[in-house]
Amino acid sequence: MRLATHQLDGRTIATADSGSGPRCTGAASVDDLLRQADWRDTARRAAEQGEPVPESAGIVAPIRTPAKVLCCGLNFRAHIEEMGRGVPAVPTFFAKWADTLTGPAADIDLEPGDTAQLDWEAELAVVVGADLRRASVAECADAIAGYTVSNDLSLRDRQWATTQWLSGKAWDATTPVGPVVVTADAFDPAEHTVTCRVDGETVQHAPLDDLLFPPAELLHHASMFTRLRPGDLVLTGTPAGVGAGRDPQRFLADGQVLETEVSGIGLLRNTIRIRS
Amino acid sequence: MRLATHQLDGRTIATADSGSGPRCTGAASVDDLLRQADWRDTARRAAEQGEPVPESAGIVAPIRTPAKVLCCGLNFRAHIEEMGRGVPAVPTFFAKWADTLTGPAADIDLEPGDTAQLDWEAELAVVVGADLRRASVAECADAIAGYTVSNDLSLRDRQWATTQWLSGKAWDATTPVGPVVVTADAFDPAEHTVTCRVDGETVQHAPLDDLLFPPAELLHHASMFTRLRPGDLVLTGTPAGVGAGRDPQRFLADGQVLETEVSGIGLLRNTIRIRS
Repeated sequence: MRLATHQLDGRTIATADSGSGPRCTGAASVDDLLRQADWRDTARRAAEQGEPVPESAGIVAPIRTPAKVLCCGLNFRAHIEEMGRGVPAVPTFFAKWADTLTGPAADIDLEPGDTAQLDWEAELAVVVGADLRRASVAECADAIAGYTVSNDLSLRDRQWATTQWLSGKAWDATTPVGPVVVTADAFDPAEHTVTCRVDGETVQHAPLDDLLFPPAELLHHASMFTRLRPGDLVLTGTPAGVGAGRDPQRFLADGQVLETEVSGIGLLRNTIRIRS
Repeated sequence: MRLATHQLDGRTIATADSGSGPRCTGAASVDDLLRQADWRDTARRAAEQGEPVPESAGIVAPIRTPAKVLCCGLNFRAHIEEMGRGVPAVPTFFAKWADTLTGPAADIDLEPGDTAQLDWEAELAVVVGADLRRASVAECADAIAGYTVSNDLSLRDRQWATTQWLSGKAWDATTPVGPVVVTADAFDPAEHTVTCRVDGETVQHAPLDDLLFPPAELLHHASMFTRLRPGDLVLTGTPAGVGAGRDPQRFLADGQVLETEVSGIGLLRNTIRIRS
Protein backbone atom coordinates (compact mmCIF):
# COMPACT_ATOMS: atom_id res chain seq x y z
CA MET A 1 0.00 0.00 0.00
CA ARG A 2 1.19 3.52 -0.80
CA LEU A 3 0.49 6.32 1.67
CA ALA A 4 0.82 9.97 0.65
CA THR A 5 -0.11 13.46 1.76
CA HIS A 6 -2.02 15.41 -0.87
CA GLN A 7 -2.77 19.12 -0.80
CA LEU A 8 -6.06 20.61 -1.93
CA ASP A 9 -7.53 24.06 -1.33
CA GLY A 10 -4.86 24.89 1.24
CA ARG A 11 -5.38 21.82 3.41
CA THR A 12 -3.53 18.51 3.47
CA ILE A 13 -5.09 15.04 3.27
CA ALA A 14 -3.48 11.68 3.99
CA THR A 15 -4.30 9.16 1.27
CA ALA A 16 -3.93 5.40 0.88
CA ASP A 17 -3.57 3.60 -2.45
CA SER A 18 -3.69 -0.16 -2.91
CA GLY A 19 -3.88 -0.02 -6.70
CA SER A 20 -7.03 1.93 -7.49
CA GLY A 21 -5.55 5.39 -6.95
CA PRO A 22 -5.11 7.50 -3.80
CA ARG A 23 -8.15 7.70 -1.54
CA CYS A 24 -8.76 9.92 1.48
CA THR A 25 -8.10 8.40 4.93
CA GLY A 26 -9.55 11.20 7.05
CA ALA A 27 -6.16 12.04 8.55
CA ALA A 28 -4.37 15.29 7.70
CA SER A 29 -0.99 13.75 6.85
CA VAL A 30 0.73 10.37 6.83
CA ASP A 31 2.32 11.06 10.23
CA ASP A 32 -1.09 12.12 11.56
CA LEU A 33 -2.51 8.80 10.25
CA LEU A 34 0.32 6.80 11.86
CA ARG A 35 -0.47 8.33 15.26
CA GLN A 36 -3.77 6.41 15.22
CA ALA A 37 -3.24 3.05 16.95
CA ASP A 38 -5.31 1.27 14.28
CA TRP A 39 -3.72 3.07 11.32
CA ARG A 40 -3.24 -0.14 9.30
CA ASP A 41 -6.99 -0.89 9.39
CA THR A 42 -7.90 2.72 8.70
CA ALA A 43 -5.54 2.86 5.72
CA ARG A 44 -6.71 -0.49 4.32
CA ARG A 45 -10.36 0.51 4.61
CA ALA A 46 -9.67 3.91 3.03
CA ALA A 47 -7.77 2.34 0.12
CA GLU A 48 -10.83 0.19 -0.61
CA GLN A 49 -13.76 2.45 0.21
CA GLY A 50 -12.38 5.98 0.71
CA GLU A 51 -13.25 9.02 -1.39
CA PRO A 52 -10.83 9.26 -4.37
CA VAL A 53 -8.61 12.34 -4.07
CA PRO A 54 -9.42 14.90 -6.82
CA GLU A 55 -6.97 14.89 -9.74
CA SER A 56 -6.19 18.54 -9.09
CA ALA A 57 -4.64 17.72 -5.70
CA GLY A 58 -0.90 18.24 -5.41
CA ILE A 59 1.47 16.05 -3.47
CA VAL A 60 3.59 17.31 -0.56
CA ALA A 61 6.05 15.76 1.90
CA PRO A 62 4.13 12.77 3.35
CA ILE A 63 5.52 13.36 6.85
CA ARG A 64 4.66 16.88 8.05
CA THR A 65 5.30 17.24 11.80
CA PRO A 66 7.50 14.39 13.04
CA ALA A 67 8.65 14.88 16.63
CA LYS A 68 12.05 13.55 15.59
CA VAL A 69 14.03 13.25 12.39
CA LEU A 70 17.15 11.17 12.94
CA CYS A 71 19.81 10.65 10.32
CA CYS A 72 22.63 8.17 10.05
CA GLY A 73 25.89 9.28 8.51
CA LEU A 74 28.43 6.82 7.10
CA ASN A 75 26.25 3.76 6.54
CA PHE A 76 27.57 2.58 3.13
CA ARG A 77 31.08 1.12 2.96
CA ALA A 78 32.08 2.90 -0.27
CA HIS A 79 30.83 6.28 1.01
CA ILE A 80 32.79 5.82 4.26
CA GLU A 81 35.91 5.29 2.14
CA GLU A 82 35.29 8.34 -0.08
CA MET A 83 34.89 10.51 3.06
CA GLY A 84 38.15 9.07 4.50
CA ARG A 85 36.51 7.58 7.60
CA GLY A 86 36.89 4.25 9.39
CA VAL A 87 34.08 1.66 9.59
CA PRO A 88 32.04 2.55 12.70
CA ALA A 89 30.97 0.13 15.47
CA VAL A 90 27.76 2.12 16.13
CA PRO A 91 25.72 4.38 13.85
CA THR A 92 26.74 8.04 13.56
CA PHE A 93 23.45 9.79 14.39
CA PHE A 94 22.59 13.43 13.89
CA ALA A 95 19.31 15.34 13.97
CA LYS A 96 17.11 17.35 11.65
CA TRP A 97 13.75 18.92 12.47
CA ALA A 98 10.31 19.01 10.85
CA ASP A 99 11.37 22.44 9.51
CA THR A 100 14.22 20.79 7.59
CA LEU A 101 11.83 18.79 5.40
CA THR A 102 10.37 19.92 2.09
CA GLY A 103 8.22 18.46 -0.67
CA PRO A 104 9.05 15.95 -3.41
CA ALA A 105 8.79 18.63 -6.13
CA ALA A 106 9.70 21.74 -4.08
CA ASP A 107 12.43 24.15 -5.08
CA ILE A 108 15.43 24.19 -2.75
CA ASP A 109 15.60 27.93 -1.99
CA LEU A 110 18.83 29.44 -0.71
CA GLU A 111 20.43 32.87 -0.60
CA PRO A 112 23.83 33.49 -2.18
CA GLY A 113 25.73 33.76 1.13
CA ASP A 114 24.24 30.57 2.56
CA THR A 115 26.70 28.11 1.03
CA ALA A 116 29.22 27.61 -1.75
CA GLN A 117 29.14 23.84 -1.30
CA LEU A 118 25.62 22.44 -1.66
CA ASP A 119 25.93 18.68 -2.04
CA TRP A 120 23.54 15.77 -2.67
CA GLU A 121 22.96 12.68 -0.51
CA ALA A 122 20.25 10.36 -1.85
CA GLU A 123 18.80 8.19 0.92
CA LEU A 124 16.17 5.66 1.84
CA ALA A 125 14.15 6.91 4.83
CA VAL A 126 12.36 4.72 7.37
CA VAL A 127 9.00 5.82 8.77
CA VAL A 128 8.33 4.74 12.36
CA GLY A 129 4.89 3.22 13.04
CA ALA A 130 4.95 2.49 16.78
CA ASP A 131 6.47 3.64 20.07
CA LEU A 132 10.04 2.40 20.56
CA ARG A 133 12.33 2.79 23.57
CA ARG A 134 15.15 0.35 24.39
CA ALA A 135 13.59 -1.92 21.76
CA SER A 136 15.11 -5.09 20.29
CA VAL A 137 15.95 -5.36 16.58
CA ALA A 138 12.90 -7.66 16.15
CA GLU A 139 10.57 -5.17 17.88
CA CYS A 140 11.98 -2.43 15.66
CA ALA A 141 11.43 -4.48 12.51
CA ASP A 142 7.76 -4.88 13.47
CA ALA A 143 7.47 -1.16 14.18
CA ILE A 144 8.50 0.03 10.71
CA ALA A 145 5.43 1.61 9.08
CA GLY A 146 7.10 1.96 5.70
CA TYR A 147 9.76 3.56 3.57
CA THR A 148 10.14 6.76 1.61
CA VAL A 149 12.77 8.64 -0.41
CA SER A 150 14.80 11.58 0.86
CA ASN A 151 17.81 13.67 -0.05
CA ASP A 152 19.96 14.73 2.90
CA LEU A 153 21.16 17.83 1.00
CA SER A 154 24.22 19.16 2.83
CA LEU A 155 25.77 22.62 2.96
CA ARG A 156 29.31 21.25 3.29
CA ASP A 157 30.98 24.54 4.29
CA ARG A 158 28.41 24.93 7.09
CA GLN A 159 28.55 21.22 8.01
CA TRP A 160 32.32 21.32 8.43
CA ALA A 161 32.71 24.81 9.95
CA THR A 162 32.67 23.10 13.38
CA THR A 163 32.91 19.47 14.51
CA GLN A 164 29.11 19.17 14.68
CA TRP A 165 27.27 18.86 11.35
CA LEU A 166 23.91 20.29 12.47
CA SER A 167 23.86 23.70 10.76
CA GLY A 168 24.88 22.19 7.41
CA LYS A 169 22.40 19.33 7.70
CA ALA A 170 19.35 20.94 9.35
CA TRP A 171 19.07 24.06 7.20
CA ASP A 172 15.34 24.81 6.90
CA ALA A 173 13.50 23.30 3.92
CA THR A 174 16.49 21.58 2.31
CA THR A 175 15.60 17.88 2.79
CA PRO A 176 13.02 16.74 0.21
CA VAL A 177 10.94 13.74 1.26
CA GLY A 178 8.36 11.62 -0.56
CA PRO A 179 6.60 11.23 -2.87
CA VAL A 180 4.91 8.34 -1.02
CA VAL A 181 5.47 6.00 1.91
CA VAL A 182 5.35 2.37 0.77
CA THR A 183 4.22 0.21 3.70
CA ALA A 184 6.75 -2.29 5.05
CA ASP A 185 4.73 -5.34 3.94
CA ALA A 186 5.13 -4.19 0.33
CA PHE A 187 8.80 -3.16 0.27
CA ASP A 188 12.03 -5.01 1.05
CA PRO A 189 14.97 -2.56 0.97
CA ALA A 190 17.42 -5.37 0.17
CA GLU A 191 15.74 -5.81 -3.24
CA HIS A 192 15.97 -2.15 -4.24
CA THR A 193 18.40 0.59 -5.23
CA VAL A 194 18.86 4.28 -4.50
CA THR A 195 19.84 6.68 -7.28
CA CYS A 196 20.70 10.37 -7.52
CA ARG A 197 20.84 12.38 -10.75
CA VAL A 198 21.94 15.96 -11.37
CA ASP A 199 20.52 17.43 -14.60
CA GLY A 200 19.94 13.87 -15.79
CA GLU A 201 23.46 12.57 -15.05
CA THR A 202 23.59 9.70 -12.56
CA VAL A 203 25.87 10.68 -9.65
CA GLN A 204 24.89 8.02 -7.10
CA HIS A 205 23.52 4.51 -7.64
CA ALA A 206 23.72 1.69 -5.10
CA PRO A 207 21.85 -1.38 -3.91
CA LEU A 208 20.20 -0.92 -0.51
CA ASP A 209 21.46 -4.30 0.72
CA ASP A 210 24.84 -2.61 1.22
CA LEU A 211 23.74 -0.73 4.41
CA LEU A 212 26.10 -1.39 7.34
CA PHE A 213 23.19 -0.84 9.76
CA PRO A 214 19.92 -1.96 8.10
CA PRO A 215 16.70 -0.14 9.05
CA ALA A 216 15.66 -2.23 12.07
CA GLU A 217 19.19 -2.09 13.52
CA LEU A 218 19.24 1.70 13.12
CA LEU A 219 15.94 2.01 14.99
CA HIS A 220 17.27 -0.31 17.71
CA HIS A 221 20.40 1.82 18.24
CA ALA A 222 18.35 5.05 18.23
CA SER A 223 15.77 3.67 20.65
CA MET A 224 18.54 2.96 23.17
CA PHE A 225 18.92 6.68 23.80
CA THR A 226 15.62 8.25 22.80
CA ARG A 227 11.98 7.33 22.34
CA LEU A 228 10.82 7.00 18.73
CA ARG A 229 7.16 7.57 17.98
CA PRO A 230 4.75 7.01 15.10
CA GLY A 231 5.51 9.46 12.32
CA ASP A 232 9.17 9.88 13.22
CA LEU A 233 11.58 9.63 10.33
CA VAL A 234 15.01 7.98 10.20
CA LEU A 235 17.25 8.66 7.21
CA THR A 236 19.49 5.67 6.60
CA GLY A 237 22.60 7.25 5.07
CA THR A 238 23.88 7.88 1.56
CA PRO A 239 26.00 5.71 -0.77
CA ALA A 240 29.21 6.77 -2.55
CA GLY A 241 29.17 9.47 -5.17
CA VAL A 242 28.58 12.70 -3.27
CA GLY A 243 30.08 15.87 -4.72
CA ALA A 244 32.48 16.47 -1.84
CA GLY A 245 34.02 13.00 -2.30
CA ARG A 246 34.99 13.68 -5.93
CA ASP A 247 38.29 14.92 -7.32
CA PRO A 248 37.78 17.72 -8.15
CA GLN A 249 34.89 18.33 -5.78
CA ARG A 250 31.61 19.27 -7.39
CA PHE A 251 28.63 21.14 -5.92
CA LEU A 252 25.08 22.11 -6.94
CA ALA A 253 24.38 25.41 -8.69
CA ASP A 254 21.34 27.62 -9.24
CA GLY A 255 18.91 26.09 -11.71
CA GLN A 256 20.20 22.52 -11.52
CA VAL A 257 17.63 19.75 -11.20
CA LEU A 258 18.22 17.12 -8.55
CA GLU A 259 16.44 13.79 -8.90
CA THR A 260 16.44 11.26 -6.07
CA GLU A 261 14.91 7.84 -6.62
CA VAL A 262 14.41 4.62 -4.72
CA SER A 263 13.18 1.81 -6.98
CA GLY A 264 9.78 0.58 -5.86
CA ILE A 265 8.94 3.86 -4.09
CA GLY A 266 9.32 6.81 -6.45
CA LEU A 267 11.13 9.95 -7.44
CA LEU A 268 11.87 13.36 -5.91
CA ARG A 269 12.54 16.12 -8.42
CA ASN A 270 13.82 19.36 -6.89
CA THR A 271 15.24 22.44 -8.58
CA ILE A 272 18.03 24.35 -6.85
CA ARG A 273 17.26 28.07 -6.55
CA ILE A 274 19.96 30.34 -5.22
CA ARG A 275 18.37 33.79 -5.20
CA SER A 276 20.69 36.60 -6.20
CA MET B 1 9.19 38.52 36.73
CA ARG B 2 9.68 34.80 37.33
CA LEU B 3 7.76 32.32 35.18
CA ALA B 4 7.44 28.67 36.19
CA THR B 5 5.48 25.53 35.43
CA HIS B 6 3.81 24.02 38.49
CA GLN B 7 2.21 20.60 38.69
CA LEU B 8 -0.99 19.90 40.59
CA ASP B 9 -3.34 16.92 40.45
CA GLY B 10 -1.63 15.55 37.36
CA ARG B 11 -1.89 18.72 35.28
CA THR B 12 0.64 21.49 34.69
CA ILE B 13 0.04 25.23 35.17
CA ALA B 14 2.19 28.13 34.01
CA THR B 15 2.66 30.70 36.77
CA ALA B 16 4.00 34.25 36.97
CA ASP B 17 5.55 35.82 40.06
CA SER B 18 6.45 39.49 40.43
CA GLY B 19 7.12 39.28 44.16
CA SER B 20 3.87 38.12 45.73
CA GLY B 21 4.31 34.42 44.94
CA PRO B 22 3.49 32.36 41.85
CA ARG B 23 0.04 32.96 40.35
CA CYS B 24 -1.78 31.04 37.63
CA THR B 25 -1.60 32.46 34.09
CA GLY B 26 -4.13 30.15 32.45
CA ALA B 27 -1.48 28.55 30.21
CA ALA B 28 -0.38 24.94 30.71
CA SER B 29 3.37 25.61 30.70
CA VAL B 30 5.81 28.47 30.22
CA ASP B 31 6.34 27.53 26.57
CA ASP B 32 2.56 27.36 26.10
CA LEU B 33 2.33 30.87 27.62
CA LEU B 34 5.09 32.20 25.34
CA ARG B 35 3.18 31.01 22.25
CA GLN B 36 0.54 33.65 23.02
CA ALA B 37 1.44 36.83 21.11
CA ASP B 38 0.55 38.99 24.14
CA TRP B 39 2.31 36.78 26.70
CA ARG B 40 4.00 39.72 28.45
CA ASP B 41 0.62 41.35 29.22
CA THR B 42 -0.93 38.02 30.20
CA ALA B 43 1.95 37.25 32.57
CA ARG B 44 1.98 40.73 34.09
CA ARG B 45 -1.77 40.66 34.69
CA ALA B 46 -1.56 37.14 36.17
CA ALA B 47 1.29 38.12 38.51
CA GLU B 48 -0.90 40.92 39.88
CA GLN B 49 -4.38 39.46 39.81
CA GLY B 50 -4.07 35.71 39.11
CA GLU B 51 -5.12 32.92 41.43
CA PRO B 52 -2.21 32.00 43.77
CA VAL B 53 -0.93 28.49 43.06
CA PRO B 54 -1.65 26.11 45.97
CA GLU B 55 1.34 25.45 48.23
CA SER B 56 1.05 21.73 47.53
CA ALA B 57 1.92 22.24 43.84
CA GLY B 58 5.26 20.86 42.71
CA ILE B 59 7.56 22.49 40.21
CA VAL B 60 8.58 20.85 36.93
CA ALA B 61 10.69 21.83 33.91
CA PRO B 62 9.25 25.24 32.88
CA ILE B 63 9.61 24.44 29.16
CA ARG B 64 7.65 21.25 28.30
CA THR B 65 7.30 20.87 24.53
CA PRO B 66 9.76 23.15 22.73
CA ALA B 67 9.88 22.50 18.97
CA LYS B 68 13.64 22.95 19.16
CA VAL B 69 16.34 22.66 21.80
CA LEU B 70 19.64 23.95 20.46
CA CYS B 71 22.90 23.75 22.36
CA CYS B 72 26.20 25.48 21.89
CA GLY B 73 29.39 23.58 22.64
CA LEU B 74 32.68 25.31 23.35
CA ASN B 75 31.50 28.79 24.33
CA PHE B 76 33.83 29.54 27.30
CA ARG B 77 37.52 30.12 26.57
CA ALA B 78 38.81 28.07 29.55
CA HIS B 79 36.51 25.12 28.70
CA ILE B 80 37.71 25.19 25.07
CA GLU B 81 41.26 24.90 26.39
CA GLU B 82 40.48 22.01 28.77
CA MET B 83 38.85 20.10 25.87
CA GLY B 84 41.90 20.76 23.68
CA ARG B 85 39.99 22.68 20.98
CA GLY B 86 40.72 25.89 19.07
CA VAL B 87 38.63 29.06 19.46
CA PRO B 88 35.77 28.76 16.93
CA ALA B 89 34.69 31.45 14.42
CA VAL B 90 31.05 30.30 14.61
CA PRO B 91 29.11 28.52 17.37
CA THR B 92 29.27 24.72 17.50
CA PHE B 93 25.57 23.84 17.52
CA PHE B 94 24.00 20.49 18.33
CA ALA B 95 20.44 19.43 19.08
CA LYS B 96 18.43 17.94 21.91
CA TRP B 97 14.69 17.24 21.95
CA ALA B 98 11.82 17.93 24.32
CA ASP B 99 12.30 14.31 25.48
CA THR B 100 15.84 15.17 26.64
CA LEU B 101 14.58 17.61 29.25
CA THR B 102 13.72 16.78 32.85
CA GLY B 103 12.69 18.62 35.99
CA PRO B 104 14.73 20.79 38.41
CA ALA B 105 14.48 18.15 41.17
CA ALA B 106 14.10 15.00 39.05
CA ASP B 107 16.33 11.96 39.45
CA ILE B 108 18.60 11.28 36.48
CA ASP B 109 17.68 7.64 35.81
CA LEU B 110 20.07 5.45 33.84
CA GLU B 111 20.72 1.73 33.47
CA PRO B 112 24.16 0.26 34.22
CA GLY B 113 25.10 -0.36 30.57
CA ASP B 114 24.13 3.14 29.43
CA THR B 115 27.39 4.88 30.27
CA ALA B 116 30.53 4.68 32.37
CA GLN B 117 31.26 8.38 31.85
CA LEU B 118 28.37 10.57 32.99
CA ASP B 119 29.65 14.14 33.17
CA TRP B 120 28.25 17.50 34.27
CA GLU B 121 27.92 20.71 32.21
CA ALA B 122 26.24 23.58 34.09
CA GLU B 123 24.74 26.11 31.66
CA LEU B 124 22.65 29.23 31.32
CA ALA B 125 19.74 28.57 28.92
CA VAL B 126 17.98 31.19 26.82
CA VAL B 127 14.23 30.98 26.27
CA VAL B 128 13.01 32.29 22.92
CA GLY B 129 9.99 34.61 23.01
CA ALA B 130 9.33 35.41 19.34
CA ASP B 131 9.71 34.04 15.82
CA LEU B 132 13.26 34.40 14.47
CA ARG B 133 14.60 33.56 11.02
CA ARG B 134 17.66 35.28 9.48
CA ALA B 135 17.33 37.77 12.34
CA SER B 136 19.89 40.44 13.33
CA VAL B 137 21.61 40.39 16.73
CA ALA B 138 19.40 43.35 17.79
CA GLU B 139 16.21 41.54 16.74
CA CYS B 140 17.39 38.47 18.63
CA ALA B 141 18.11 40.51 21.78
CA ASP B 142 14.52 41.81 21.68
CA ALA B 143 13.19 38.27 21.17
CA ILE B 144 14.69 36.77 24.34
CA ALA B 145 11.82 35.93 26.69
CA GLY B 146 14.08 35.08 29.59
CA TYR B 147 16.71 32.83 31.08
CA THR B 148 16.76 29.58 32.98
CA VAL B 149 19.26 27.08 34.40
CA SER B 150 20.19 23.77 32.77
CA ASN B 151 22.73 20.99 33.00
CA ASP B 152 23.81 19.53 29.66
CA LEU B 153 24.64 16.19 31.31
CA SER B 154 26.76 14.23 28.85
CA LEU B 155 27.38 10.49 28.47
CA ARG B 156 30.96 11.00 27.26
CA ASP B 157 31.51 7.44 25.99
CA ARG B 158 28.33 7.76 23.89
CA GLN B 159 29.14 11.34 22.88
CA TRP B 160 32.57 10.36 21.57
CA ALA B 161 31.73 6.93 20.10
CA THR B 162 31.31 8.68 16.74
CA THR B 163 32.13 12.19 15.47
CA GLN B 164 28.58 13.39 16.20
CA TRP B 165 27.70 14.03 19.85
CA LEU B 166 23.94 13.47 19.59
CA SER B 167 23.48 10.13 21.37
CA GLY B 168 25.59 11.25 24.35
CA LYS B 169 23.86 14.63 24.56
CA ALA B 170 20.23 13.86 23.71
CA TRP B 171 19.71 10.82 25.95
CA ASP B 172 16.09 10.98 27.15
CA ALA B 173 15.42 12.81 30.44
CA THR B 174 19.03 13.71 31.24
CA THR B 175 18.97 17.52 30.89
CA PRO B 176 17.42 19.17 33.96
CA VAL B 177 15.92 22.62 33.34
CA GLY B 178 14.43 25.23 35.66
CA PRO B 179 13.41 25.96 38.31
CA VAL B 180 12.08 29.22 36.82
CA VAL B 181 12.46 31.44 33.78
CA VAL B 182 13.49 34.97 34.80
CA THR B 183 12.27 37.43 32.16
CA ALA B 184 14.93 39.29 30.19
CA ASP B 185 14.01 42.69 31.66
CA ALA B 186 14.97 41.37 35.10
CA PHE B 187 18.18 39.49 34.31
CA ASP B 188 21.49 40.54 32.74
CA PRO B 189 23.70 37.46 32.21
CA ALA B 190 26.86 39.58 32.33
CA GLU B 191 26.19 40.31 36.01
CA HIS B 192 25.77 36.68 37.04
CA THR B 193 27.64 33.42 37.53
CA VAL B 194 27.00 29.74 36.80
CA THR B 195 28.01 27.10 39.35
CA CYS B 196 27.99 23.31 39.49
CA ARG B 197 28.40 21.22 42.64
CA VAL B 198 28.74 17.46 43.11
CA ASP B 199 27.81 16.29 46.61
CA GLY B 200 28.39 19.86 47.79
CA GLU B 201 31.84 20.29 46.22
CA THR B 202 32.06 23.12 43.67
CA VAL B 203 33.30 21.71 40.37
CA GLN B 204 32.41 24.60 38.03
CA HIS B 205 32.08 28.30 38.76
CA ALA B 206 32.35 31.07 36.19
CA PRO B 207 31.04 34.54 35.37
CA LEU B 208 28.58 34.58 32.46
CA ASP B 209 30.27 37.60 30.88
CA ASP B 210 32.93 35.15 29.64
CA LEU B 211 30.71 33.70 26.86
CA LEU B 212 32.40 33.85 23.43
CA PHE B 213 28.96 34.08 21.78
CA PRO B 214 26.54 35.90 24.13
CA PRO B 215 22.84 34.94 24.01
CA ALA B 216 21.65 37.29 21.26
CA GLU B 217 24.61 36.35 19.03
CA LEU B 218 23.83 32.65 19.52
CA LEU B 219 20.21 33.20 18.48
CA HIS B 220 21.38 35.21 15.46
CA HIS B 221 23.68 32.41 14.28
CA ALA B 222 20.99 29.76 14.88
CA SER B 223 18.31 31.79 13.08
CA MET B 224 20.50 31.89 9.96
CA PHE B 225 19.82 28.20 9.35
CA THR B 226 16.57 27.46 11.15
CA ARG B 227 13.47 29.20 12.43
CA LEU B 228 13.32 29.70 16.20
CA ARG B 229 9.92 29.99 17.81
CA PRO B 230 8.45 31.03 21.16
CA GLY B 231 9.24 28.39 23.76
CA ASP B 232 12.37 27.12 22.03
CA LEU B 233 15.39 26.70 24.27
CA VAL B 234 19.04 27.49 23.54
CA LEU B 235 21.69 26.20 25.94
CA THR B 236 24.67 28.55 25.92
CA GLY B 237 27.58 26.22 26.72
CA THR B 238 29.47 25.22 29.85
CA PRO B 239 32.52 26.75 31.54
CA ALA B 240 35.70 24.90 32.54
CA GLY B 241 35.66 22.22 35.21
CA VAL B 242 33.86 19.28 33.58
CA GLY B 243 34.88 15.79 34.74
CA ALA B 244 36.31 14.73 31.37
CA GLY B 245 38.67 17.71 31.37
CA ARG B 246 40.30 16.71 34.69
CA ASP B 247 43.44 14.69 35.30
CA PRO B 248 42.50 12.07 36.31
CA GLN B 249 39.06 12.21 34.70
CA ARG B 250 36.11 12.05 37.05
CA PHE B 251 32.51 11.00 36.39
CA LEU B 252 29.17 10.87 38.22
CA ALA B 253 28.13 7.78 40.19
CA ASP B 254 24.87 6.35 41.52
CA GLY B 255 23.53 8.36 44.43
CA GLN B 256 25.55 11.51 43.83
CA VAL B 257 23.72 14.82 44.05
CA LEU B 258 24.28 17.31 41.25
CA GLU B 259 23.49 20.96 41.93
CA THR B 260 23.42 23.50 39.12
CA GLU B 261 22.92 27.16 39.89
CA VAL B 262 22.77 30.46 38.08
CA SER B 263 22.83 33.41 40.48
CA GLY B 264 19.65 35.45 40.17
CA ILE B 265 17.67 32.51 38.72
CA GLY B 266 17.87 29.51 41.02
CA LEU B 267 19.07 25.99 41.65
CA LEU B 268 18.58 22.55 40.08
CA ARG B 269 19.14 19.64 42.45
CA ASN B 270 19.22 16.24 40.75
CA THR B 271 20.22 12.85 42.14
CA ILE B 272 21.98 10.39 39.86
CA ARG B 273 20.27 6.97 39.85
CA ILE B 274 21.97 4.17 37.99
CA ARG B 275 19.64 1.20 38.45
CA SER B 276 21.38 -2.11 38.94
